[in-house]
Amino acid sequence: MTLYLLHIIYLVALAAEAMTAALAAGRRSMDWVGVILLACITGLGGGSVRDLLLNHHPLSWVGSPELLLVTGGAAILTIIIARHMYKLQRVFLFLDAVGLVVFSIIGSNIAIGLDQPFLVVIAAGMITGCVGGVLRDILCNDVPLLFRAELYATVSVITVVIFAGGGRLGLDHNIVLLFALGVGLCMRLLALRFGWSMPKFVYKHDLH
Amino acid sequence: MTLYLLHIIYLVALAAEAMTAALAAGRRSMDWVGVILLACITGLGGGSVRDLLLNHHPLSWVGSPELLLVTGGAAILTIIIARHMYKLQRVFLFLDAVGLVVFSIIGSNIAIGLDQPFLVVIAAGMITGCVGGVLRDILCNDVPLLFRAELYATVSVITVVIFAGGGRLGLDHNIVLLFALGVGLCMRLLALRFGWSMPKFVYKHDLH
Amino acid sequence: MTLYLLHIIYLVALAAEAMTAALAAGRRSMDWVGVILLACITGLGGGSVRDLLLNHHPLSWVGSPELLLVTGGAAILTIIIARHMYKLQRVFLFLDAVGLVVFSIIGSNIAIGLDQPFLVVIAAGMITGCVGGVLRDILCNDVPLLFRAELYATVSVITVVIFAGGGRLGLDHNIVLLFALGVGLCMRLLALRFGWSMPKFVYKHDLH
Repeated sequence: MTLYLLHIIYLVALAAEAMTAALAAGRRSMDWVGVILLACITGLGGGSVRDLLLNHHPLSWVGSPELLLVTGGAAILTIIIARHMYKLQRVFLFLDAVGLVVFSIIGSNIAIGLDQPFLVVIAAGMITGCVGGVLRDILCNDVPLLFRAELYATVSVITVVIFAGGGRLGLDHNIVLLFALGVGLCMRLLALRFGWSMPKFVYKHDLH
Repeated sequence: MTLYLLHIIYLVALAAEAMTAALAAGRRSMDWVGVILLACITGLGGGSVRDLLLNHHPLSWVGSPELLLVTGGAAILTIIIARHMYKLQRVFLFLDAVGLVVFSIIGSNIAIGLDQPFLVVIAAGMITGCVGGVLRDILCNDVPLLFRAELYATVSVITVVIFAGGGRLGLDHNIVLLFALGVGLCMRLLALRFGWSMPKFVYKHDLH
Repeated sequence: MTLYLLHIIYLVALAAEAMTAALAAGRRSMDWVGVILLACITGLGGGSVRDLLLNHHPLSWVGSPELLLVTGGAAILTIIIARHMYKLQRVFLFLDAVGLVVFSIIGSNIAIGLDQPFLVVIAAGMITGCVGGVLRDILCNDVPLLFRAELYATVSVITVVIFAGGGRLGLDHNIVLLFALGVGLCMRLLALRFGWSMPKFVYKHDLH
């Protein structure tokens, strides 16, 4: 039942990711088709890369093409209601945090189902949570936020370690799930609120 | 027979895509090996991504490595005759349009052969038609033209919808093929001629 | 026995690639998690892309997740000892050259084991040797060095042609291996020392 709930939250988070990607596209004045494509790639790219790397076919959107309607529809909705969306900024930041955490948990859960070793489970969770945003930033020609932003990747890895570690210790699945979800979400929201970030590595010599 | 003709057109379009990629490489003063690599990636990248996503192995160039000779040879030819190529600008824009439409049709035809649902067929066609150019733009460190240019992605999606939709309605295969080819090609050439473009989505608020 | 030695050299080269990627991350002031991720992607990305394209599963790091500890550990070590690393610049350039040559040989050897045709063997070697650095450059938002730098891709292709060609001619495996390793390494080091480069293709007309 908790996994069913997780699926509902996944669809909401997928739409939210697609909408933030559509806004990023709008900031670069892309045309409507470009907006829809960027939304689909951002929302579904992380899971696709994970499935390719783990040889887990069919990919989510190949097996359930209606997911393309969710991301594409969210992009079109964004274009229509864009002028009111700055009011919803806080809602979006919250949904984006939910997306990061839920995508990470779902991704690691798939790797667990494939009996992958622990490190691969962690990697699968992080890839699912973070790669969509990296693809968005590459296609917008930015240095991916992931490598700089407030605890984004860190939240993903901690969420996954709690979820996969708790499962490995034989704890109750639903409790572990809710605990991982809660910790990840709190960390991300507190990081946003207080501007927390990981220490930076600054190196000024050129190798050549 | 029409499919055989399509294969010939495919090889010509593949060479044309490789040549436009080689010119893009020349505009950034890449070295000869870089030119050849960029031409191969641009020409064969779209089909490779489609085949990876659909788990359709071997990839075209793995099964038919002589395709690498077509793209690599086209790149070398471009380096040799570059100083005369600006005279052929119109020929290239025409061949580039042919490439877009033919790649899109071939890509969707492969998904149809794999019994994929309609939305996946559309996606497969668009990926085949458009991803090569996206990879070229990313490797040249540009925002991909796809997200801005005159009807590029739109032409691909309309071509594929006609081709795959006509097939689904049970219409004669050859007629549907030629009709999709004609409509796509005309749209792209008219868009180039008259500067048609999709409406842009402009959004000026920052999310953070 | 030579292949066992090659595996040891591979692990050293993998750590070296991860460390140069970590330095590139430091030059862009990425945070610690970003540094570790970039190191893993750079070190293991080339082999992963090769395995995806050849449908060769599981990927190296999925089958042997301890490779993630090698690249991640090398990144953390780099952060700790960074202030002393400019003294080791020559060591790094040497290890980077070793990495290029060894990755290329190992990649082509895997394609040979899969009975791929000669052109695909060459491509597999080049992809393994070069794609990690291309991914690093894309994620740092640079035009990939590969398309410009001193004989980088050229060294990879020549190494692989010697290694795979010698094997095809039935020459002794160990001798061919050492000869390919030696020629590739010398070429790369001489190119670095004397600033050798391939001729550039310069094209100044715009297509549109």
